[in-house]
Amino acid sequence: MHRTTIRVRYGETDQMGVAHHSAYAGWLESGRVALCRDAGIPYREIEAAGYNMAVAELTIRYLKPALFDQVLTIETRLARLTPRLIVFDYRITNPDGEPVATAETRHLVVNRNLTRASLPAGIMEKLKQAETAHA
Amino acid sequence: MHRTTIRVRYGETDQMGVAHHSAYAGWLESGRVALCRDAGIPYREIEAAGYNMAVAELTIRYLKPALFDQVLTIETRLARLTPRLIVFDYRITNPDGEPVATAETRHLVVNRNLTRASLPAGIMEKLKQAETAHA
Amino acid sequence: MHRTTIRVRYGETDQMGVAHHSAYAGWLESGRVALCRDAGIPYREIEAAGYNMAVAELTIRYLKPALFDQVLTIETRLARLTPRLIVFDYRITNPDGEPVATAETRHLVVNRNLTRASLPAGIMEKLKQAETAHA
Amino acid sequence: MHRTTIRVRYGETDQMGVAHHSAYAGWLESGRVALCRDAGIPYREIEAAGYNMAVAELTIRYLKPALFDQVLTIETRLARLTPRLIVFDYRITNPDGEPVATAETRHLVVNRNLTRASLPAGIMEKLKQAETAHA
Repeated sequence: MHRTTIRVRYGETDQMGVAHHSAYAGWLESGRVALCRDAGIPYREIEAAGYNMAVAELTIRYLKPALFDQVLTIETRLARLTPRLIVFDYRITNPDGEPVATAETRHLVVNRNLTRASLPAGIMEKLKQAETAHA
Repeated sequence: MHRTTIRVRYGETDQMGVAHHSAYAGWLESGRVALCRDAGIPYREIEAAGYNMAVAELTIRYLKPALFDQVLTIETRLARLTPRLIVFDYRITNPDGEPVATAETRHLVVNRNLTRASLPAGIMEKLKQAETAHA
Repeated sequence: MHRTTIRVRYGETDQMGVAHHSAYAGWLESGRVALCRDAGIPYREIEAAGYNMAVAELTIRYLKPALFDQVLTIETRLARLTPRLIVFDYRITNPDGEPVATAETRHLVVNRNLTRASLPAGIMEKLKQAETAHA
Repeated sequence: MHRTTIRVRYGETDQMGVAHHSAYAGWLESGRVALCRDAGIPYREIEAAGYNMAVAELTIRYLKPALFDQVLTIETRLARLTPRLIVFDYRITNPDGEPVATAETRHLVVNRNLTRASLPAGIMEKLKQAETAHA
């Protein structure tokens, strides 16, 4: 799986003293943006080409609290890749290697008008290589 | 179902021109906090009594973009209520009554040390009335 | 001054047990968006006409912590209104009427390309009425 | 000045196509947290010792838009350091070295009850070294 890290910000904590559950969605996004970048197809280039991977479904299972200033590892995997539907799954671990969360996001490919579209061959090729590299 | 409304903030939009998918988690939270308040047991009183409903799982299905300044209706239902596990489900609709998202959150009851606990009878009673009222 | 209210969200608190200082920027934005709406010129119409009020400077003085679930009053005033530069100031109070924060935002009028522009007469007229109404 | 970097997240952009002005407060926080960490006194240890640097005032001047996926450099300087009042100032630059923002935050030292307090000598010593190192 592709790996990236994020550090938990103070503003991401809540009054329970742990990272608020809504912060994780942004961390997962950082994971898949990093995966695309490392696949040689930065997400901003996908957007510049006129496409977006609109989030159609998000599932997060919270396993252990994430704490302020911890460096978390986000492992991201392209679980399914078609020109119109893309699925990522994720595993977040803390500095002790303990699982903090697992997650899945399902994305519909859309164009600038937010209507459904198909990723062109050039982008698909690069993502396929990422899919293989991080299987 | 219990109903509350939120207005989409400018800062909740992203460069696709729609509300970012991470904003929805906060809206769902506003829905269940409002349900508890209207059940006569404000969430801050649950916390003051030493309990939290830690989010164990979050699932959101995004059906239609939410737009800046729209007033969205959050319908919240207590789908399952036990002293140790609570499940809410949600339906978000836009001003035209169109479905924007459906969602579910699963919560473990924990105490101040974030270890599992059971809600006391007094809180359970009030939530049960809310469960019936909004079935 | 123009008044609107917001309720402090759980996710806006941090591990100090109070609303995180970054949340206030969004509340101020809600205040000025509400002022424009009540002036008969919703901010999304200003944007649809091709203009934005880009934030050039933000100053917030934090006077008293804001707490989860409190309903805060945001008072917003158009302190200066020219076609190219707009200044709002703000006063946030808690349910006991105590001052929580004062703030100021300075905005440059820009067009869709983010280059400086001048608000057209029609929009200026409506904002001028708001300026007078809430002086 | 002390330097750290952050990468602009997709969720930090808004429908103007640039980073929303409220995101900067979190970046500044990352800057001062990194400064403390590199000074040998991680912010979580300051908190564990019973102290907080509550934000009393925030000023940000926005000079140039920050864009999705840009790696920004946050330069942080301890502009004033006393046991009861601490002032940081900041400069944010984009990958081309252009200034994106300058900022200042003023902090009151408080204890766990959020009443004013004085930083103990041990913490002051380490911060003083940081003040000198990044002058």
